Amino acid sequence: MEFQNYFPIWNKLNSDQKDLLLSTLITRTVKKGTVIHNGGNDCTGLLLIKSGQLRAYILSDEGREITIYRLFDRDMCLFSASCMMRSIQFDITIEAEKDTNLWIIPVEIYQNIMTESAPVANYTNELMASRFSDVMWLIEQIMWKSLDKRVAAFLLEESAIEDSDTLKITHEAIANHLGSHREVITRMLKYFQNEGMVKLSRGTIELADKSRLEELSDQ
Amino acid sequence: MEFQNYFPIWNKLNSDQKDLLLSTLITRTVKKGTVIHNGGNDCTGLLLIKSGQLRAYILSDEGREITIYRLFDRDMCLFSASCMMRSIQFDITIEAEKDTNLWIIPVEIYQNIMTESAPVANYTNELMASRFSDVMWLIEQIMWKSLDKRVAAFLLEESAIEDSDTLKITHEAIANHLGSHREVITRMLKYFQNEGMVKLSRGTIELADKSRLEELSDQ
Repeated sequence: MEFQNYFPIWNKLNSDQKDLLLSTLITRTVKKGTVIHNGGNDCTGLLLIKSGQLRAYILSDEGREITIYRLFDRDMCLFSASCMMRSIQFDITIEAEKDTNLWIIPVEIYQNIMTESAPVANYTNELMASRFSDVMWLIEQIMWKSLDKRVAAFLLEESAIEDSDTLKITHEAIANHLGSHREVITRMLKYFQNEGMVKLSRGTIELADKSRLEELSDQ
Repeated sequence: MEFQNYFPIWNKLNSDQKDLLLSTLITRTVKKGTVIHNGGNDCTGLLLIKSGQLRAYILSDEGREITIYRLFDRDMCLFSASCMMRSIQFDITIEAEKDTNLWIIPVEIYQNIMTESAPVANYTNELMASRFSDVMWLIEQIMWKSLDKRVAAFLLEESAIEDSDTLKITHEAIANHLGSHREVITRMLKYFQNEGMVKLSRGTIELADKSRLEELSDQ
């Protein structure tokens, strides 16, 4: 069991809490595309990612999406356990963007430990503050940045995550990340291609001039 | 001293913590319009409102504003003490919307108590989750709701806060709440007036047909 090495405040638990966690923990492997947590009625538990990639997003009544944050190796997801706190009054969907290995900590177990342990409660505070910062960044992006800059920033972020200048991603997927429409993204990417910043081919986007994309996204 | 009656988890503090809080607490009265906290470099402390009204907003580089949340009697403001948690990576400005009486809890005092007290840390978690819910609501508004619905909802909210159908508020102030421009708000309010939903006069907006405004904002 390697959970101990992944759970950041393992050493701050007492032996009862350690035993309780280890004996109730669920290990799960999910395929890319799996919806792990689906909105407010679902109380999945806390997720700790061993390896893989998750995306948390919200959905409009019309089925539009916008990515709220993404999670990578060693990240922990709190809002898949939103029933844990009565003040969490919003619905998030969590989907695997890659095949993912993760642990699920049952809500009532984590909640019990958090209620009695100041270190666990303070760690949870830091987790939430970190997601809060993601969301505030997102509001600033939506409010003050035009879509061309947001698309440029997204392409660069994807390129960093994938460690590649050729991205296998659909225009629809980009629209769903940014809360936009496929047609709008396609038009923007064609404009980028005319400017020499990207090269488009079936199913892929090649970042042809990253320094100009960076310049655009930084403005 | 009435702080004890306003601080929601007073009974969960031990006597040392109670003494420490009471002996370091600052009582302050601020006039409407006062900026109490100004961005990330400012670490004002936690604010507990005795009476009054505060507004937390973010600013763009160009000076545009959008309201993130508002605080009323008995509310507590965490992000005026953002230096308390390293994961809080955003800047908020807090301004008094009305003459306000408040207590300021110094950051290092609250932080010390939170570090050792699970109830205080868990209470702080609930506070943050509650603000998180405000911010998620805001993202949904910005992303999926058109401005006419948001203006209608804002007028109804103001009317509820002021307990009056005649609002003394400038078009500029509404724009700053909603992250819009004064000209755009003026145009929208004139459209509302043509539709018989409001009556505009110098410095005031009268809500002439609240049920139609509610219908519009609910759509």
